[in-house]
Amino acid sequence: MNHDLVSTLFREFRKLPICDPHTHVPWDKPCALHLGDLLGYHYYTELANSSRGEPVKLPDDPDERIDYVWPHLPKLRGTVQFDWMMGISEIFFEIPRGDWWSKPKHEIVSRAQKVIRDGSYVQRVFERSNVTKVYLTNQFDEDLSRLKDRRLVPCLRTDDLVFNAATAKMVERLDACTKLKSGKSLKEFDKALTMVFDRFAEWKMGYAAVGLPPGFAVEPVKAKVAEKLLKRLADGKKFDREQKFTWASFMVDRLAQQCARVNAPFCLMAGADRGVYEHGVPAGQDLFSCDGNLRGYDGLLNKYPQVRFPMMVVSDTAGLELVTEGWIRHNVYPFSHWWYANNPEDIRREVRRRLDVLPRNKFIGFHSDGYSLEFVLPKFNTFRLQLALVLSQKIEESRIAGSDVTEPLTVEAAVALAEKIMLKNPDEILGVK
Amino acid sequence: MNHDLVSTLFREFRKLPICDPHTHVPWDKPCALHLGDLLGYHYYTELANSSRGEPVKLPDDPDERIDYVWPHLPKLRGTVQFDWMMGISEIFFEIPRGDWWSKPKHEIVSRAQKVIRDGSYVQRVFERSNVTKVYLTNQFDEDLSRLKDRRLVPCLRTDDLVFNAATAKMVERLDACTKLKSGKSLKEFDKALTMVFDRFAEWKMGYAAVGLPPGFAVEPVKAKVAEKLLKRLADGKKFDREQKFTWASFMVDRLAQQCARVNAPFCLMAGADRGVYEHGVPAGQDLFSCDGNLRGYDGLLNKYPQVRFPMMVVSDTAGLELVTEGWIRHNVYPFSHWWYANNPEDIRREVRRRLDVLPRNKFIGFHSDGYSLEFVLPKFNTFRLQLALVLSQKIEESRIAGSDVTEPLTVEAAVALAEKIMLKNPDEILGVK
Amino acid sequence: MNHDLVSTLFREFRKLPICDPHTHVPWDKPCALHLGDLLGYHYYTELANSSRGEPVKLPDDPDERIDYVWPHLPKLRGTVQFDWMMGISEIFFEIPRGDWWSKPKHEIVSRAQKVIRDGSYVQRVFERSNVTKVYLTNQFDEDLSRLKDRRLVPCLRTDDLVFNAATAKMVERLDACTKLKSGKSLKEFDKALTMVFDRFAEWKMGYAAVGLPPGFAVEPVKAKVAEKLLKRLADGKKFDREQKFTWASFMVDRLAQQCARVNAPFCLMAGADRGVYEHGVPAGQDLFSCDGNLRGYDGLLNKYPQVRFPMMVVSDTAGLELVTEGWIRHNVYPFSHWWYANNPEDIRREVRRRLDVLPRNKFIGFHSDGYSLEFVLPKFNTFRLQLALVLSQKIEESRIAGSDVTEPLTVEAAVALAEKIMLKNPDEILGVK
Repeated sequence: MNHDLVSTLFREFRKLPICDPHTHVPWDKPCALHLGDLLGYHYYTELANSSRGEPVKLPDDPDERIDYVWPHLPKLRGTVQFDWMMGISEIFFEIPRGDWWSKPKHEIVSRAQKVIRDGSYVQRVFERSNVTKVYLTNQFDEDLSRLKDRRLVPCLRTDDLVFNAATAKMVERLDACTKLKSGKSLKEFDKALTMVFDRFAEWKMGYAAVGLPPGFAVEPVKAKVAEKLLKRLADGKKFDREQKFTWASFMVDRLAQQCARVNAPFCLMAGADRGVYEHGVPAGQDLFSCDGNLRGYDGLLNKYPQVRFPMMVVSDTAGLELVTEGWIRHNVYPFSHWWYANNPEDIRREVRRRLDVLPRNKFIGFHSDGYSLEFVLPKFNTFRLQLALVLSQKIEESRIAGSDVTEPLTVEAAVALAEKIMLKNPDEILGVK
Repeated sequence: MNHDLVSTLFREFRKLPICDPHTHVPWDKPCALHLGDLLGYHYYTELANSSRGEPVKLPDDPDERIDYVWPHLPKLRGTVQFDWMMGISEIFFEIPRGDWWSKPKHEIVSRAQKVIRDGSYVQRVFERSNVTKVYLTNQFDEDLSRLKDRRLVPCLRTDDLVFNAATAKMVERLDACTKLKSGKSLKEFDKALTMVFDRFAEWKMGYAAVGLPPGFAVEPVKAKVAEKLLKRLADGKKFDREQKFTWASFMVDRLAQQCARVNAPFCLMAGADRGVYEHGVPAGQDLFSCDGNLRGYDGLLNKYPQVRFPMMVVSDTAGLELVTEGWIRHNVYPFSHWWYANNPEDIRREVRRRLDVLPRNKFIGFHSDGYSLEFVLPKFNTFRLQLALVLSQKIEESRIAGSDVTEPLTVEAAVALAEKIMLKNPDEILGVK
Repeated sequence: MNHDLVSTLFREFRKLPICDPHTHVPWDKPCALHLGDLLGYHYYTELANSSRGEPVKLPDDPDERIDYVWPHLPKLRGTVQFDWMMGISEIFFEIPRGDWWSKPKHEIVSRAQKVIRDGSYVQRVFERSNVTKVYLTNQFDEDLSRLKDRRLVPCLRTDDLVFNAATAKMVERLDACTKLKSGKSLKEFDKALTMVFDRFAEWKMGYAAVGLPPGFAVEPVKAKVAEKLLKRLADGKKFDREQKFTWASFMVDRLAQQCARVNAPFCLMAGADRGVYEHGVPAGQDLFSCDGNLRGYDGLLNKYPQVRFPMMVVSDTAGLELVTEGWIRHNVYPFSHWWYANNPEDIRREVRRRLDVLPRNKFIGFHSDGYSLEFVLPKFNTFRLQLALVLSQKIEESRIAGSDVTEPLTVEAAVALAEKIMLKNPDEILGVK
């Protein structure tokens, strides 16, 4: 490792503002109200549950959540997940990392709480993070008319219209927010969908997004079949497994149509299997499968050449497949490093692949997936460090190889490239055009 | 690469004692009796068979085995497998590596034989390896009552109860060692199984273990169905493919029950397909499949939350899947680097992933899989070097990043971490509790 | 990275002559006649199509092809694909890389054209590349009797006999070139095949080769079934999907028989799915699937122990599987780094794995896959740089570890190893013996 070169690059990357193209930050409460909201982030509760060796139910109360994870923190030392918490502690709370091991719990909690309760806290998090834009995750029936902060970009998460349609009472909620009878017919349903997309388009949505299980294939579904399934939903009936997948196929196609209509991107989040580990804490029960390929999307991607499809994968094994989708397809944009694939080893591999073979306008650098604004900066810093390692290596290779073998890469060009993939590409690729 | 840092770490790691949590070392003959026992290790015979370009049957005689591999050794130079032999040669035989190329075969053999035949040989191998504990591989009907050396930990390998039940004459052997009629009924069979597990528990077993093919799924099996299959086994009949898998599903569940009963871990060794290459030498006929996922174990892992499941995979593609199992599940412990995945490139990747995202008590560093004690040290040294590379990189990253981004990692902390995963975790995770 | 060590190795590798064991170079027109032939290489047209965000049909005219890619080149800067073009520009055209950004298009084109039209151009490309041998891709009905340049080695590409049999009018073409009625019966068909192989054997073929889709399995096909399919082909009928796969299984086996008969290797190119992206440019429509394993070849590889099977994979996920095939099987030879897997990140991983665990005579270092001779050198240089990185790391590791842990690796030994895998192994493994 070239210490100086990596240091220089990392220092430069830290000076860049942040555009975070995918988060779960609540628009009306971007920051935590309690340290328990941060330590209650599923990354900590699931690791605490995992490391204790026996499953224990997660309590609801924020103080109790702190107690839930606290005794297990020493076992989490050195992980990237815990490093994010330590980044928050050092940067926003001004509590040095070492204090977590040398001071009693109540002291850490009360020092953190004091900062959080300060009136300028949200402002300070924004400023120290240098965040200029944060894309949100919003349900189809959320009312975002009061959201005026232009830094926060609404994004329509459609899982409750797709795989969760039955359990999430889609029809009922759709009717409530559109004042239509969406379950009456496909025609009426389409009208409701159109109202939802029009509203989000008016709110200048970043994209529509959907999470899909490993190896999902979008199959053609006849209108008649879809109509019957819609009827079941309207009647409050459950779906069996086959019906669930059929409805999902139908809806993914319908959503792509809507995205085409309003000229918004459709973000495919591929590969997570929900609710697999039954003793897990909330959001800590999901896994993936190493044999989940992306070829089930071929038909969809071919059918909607006018729609941009930013695409993220939760598995490492689909990494190169995703790169090659972005390589040959004009409408697929590899999107950052997601969840289980968002670890330094896998980040480095994918970043290097993308930098080496993709047009530089075809992929999005990073997103935090954070549930509150505090996580954005530390998670970007993890990525920035790995990006610095990769670009430093590319600089070194270019110095050795000569211009007849590789593009001579300078520090300036590397910083420009980082800016391109982290700041410019989200702007160019995402949003209603 | 930071030469000094890697050197320092590697030097420190070499000073550590070794706990080897999975081997095939025979308890009553831990070391080789002949150089042909070492050069007859399947890693050498299979590579010799492979490199000669035409299949040749492996002879039984140790001297002939040496002749079998000897002419092909130059083509194996520089491989890790051959490095292990060279480690044995230099450390235990005091034959420098160079002599293998400059001296005649008979001289190497006779110098090695002289050392092996020395009365203090086993003692010397133990001492120079600094081995404090070695987990064994034992059949269900082995009599270990004379095993008094507490460094050697019995482990119940159950393949002959599971996939090999028919071919390995399970019922016959079970009856012989329990004096029961295990094939009479499931009830009687369970009694026999209970006797086996009680005996191994009394012998302070490390764990029960089973090897399972790529993509294996543990399916629920009705008692009636299992009873019929047991009858077939009792009658000495063969299984067809479906019956084989049904029996295996039944038995894996039964073994998990026994592990729960005696509070022993159940080690799952996932992904090897046996007997694929028909021209191969013994133990050199097995392959894996890159699409073998781990999701077939979901039901089993959920059903027995009280059982610890150390888990190893033979493929690289299931590596991150295994990491995420250990990440969210409280009862899965990623176990070392196995067989085809036990090569420097894949070791580095998996170690880095595990260190970055797993609680430090959730995985086991390394095992040798050695067939005799001599292989333990050289194989650990291969791992130690790769671990030094990974931890050196983490130290360097932490120096660049600052404490608001990564845990500051010192040499001392890195050595403690190595000790934790190689020495403490096997003790904490394995064994009857 | 050890700058000096990598530089030294890379410099030494650049001095080596090149044997390129797989290309699409036309024997009668090895070099481009127009810059548009080079910028029309599918790597540039597909990236241009991809980066523009909307599909545009590729024109036929070489000048228009230049226009097609030209505006998108800035987005391709820094990719390895574009580096190959820049290598051609600097080495053969003597146009510095920087001129592409600072000079007008017409100037670049006319300077390149001037060089290309020079009578000594082909000679110069050969000399500067230091190419001693280039393996070609030839159709079964090509007449190579006028090919006298011994540097160019014919190779029989059999896709038109296998998966494309119906669409590529196999029977008709076979009849035309053999003067037989190959569609009359299997016996007659075998005669025709024998004539084809005899002719290629006489031309001193390098190998027969076939491209097969992800997860393809060679299944036994009864003669009667094959005979019926042959009849369909003779009648000019199409195949359905199942018939296509059945015929392919039959033919792969038949081709292996022929290879056995004339003692030529049978090169398996596994994993590319053709025509997936319907808006793509020619040769820019193909993808792979991350779950495509190699186990469907088990039967074939076992059945023909006397045939050498060099094997390449287009996916990253089958990389270690391929390594283990080469590890235990005497007749499988991992062959270079192909297409999507031919990027620096994946090259480094596979090279390291192969160097660490395979006999050094069991794999082939690199091939260019180039469509004209100019691409050979720049593509080899990309590989040479990554090989230098890997071998430099191995040298450094050996310096740290000591001879009781790893083979001491010197620069001289590393260069010899590079020569072995890039120059000697192709000669030893390929060709009619």
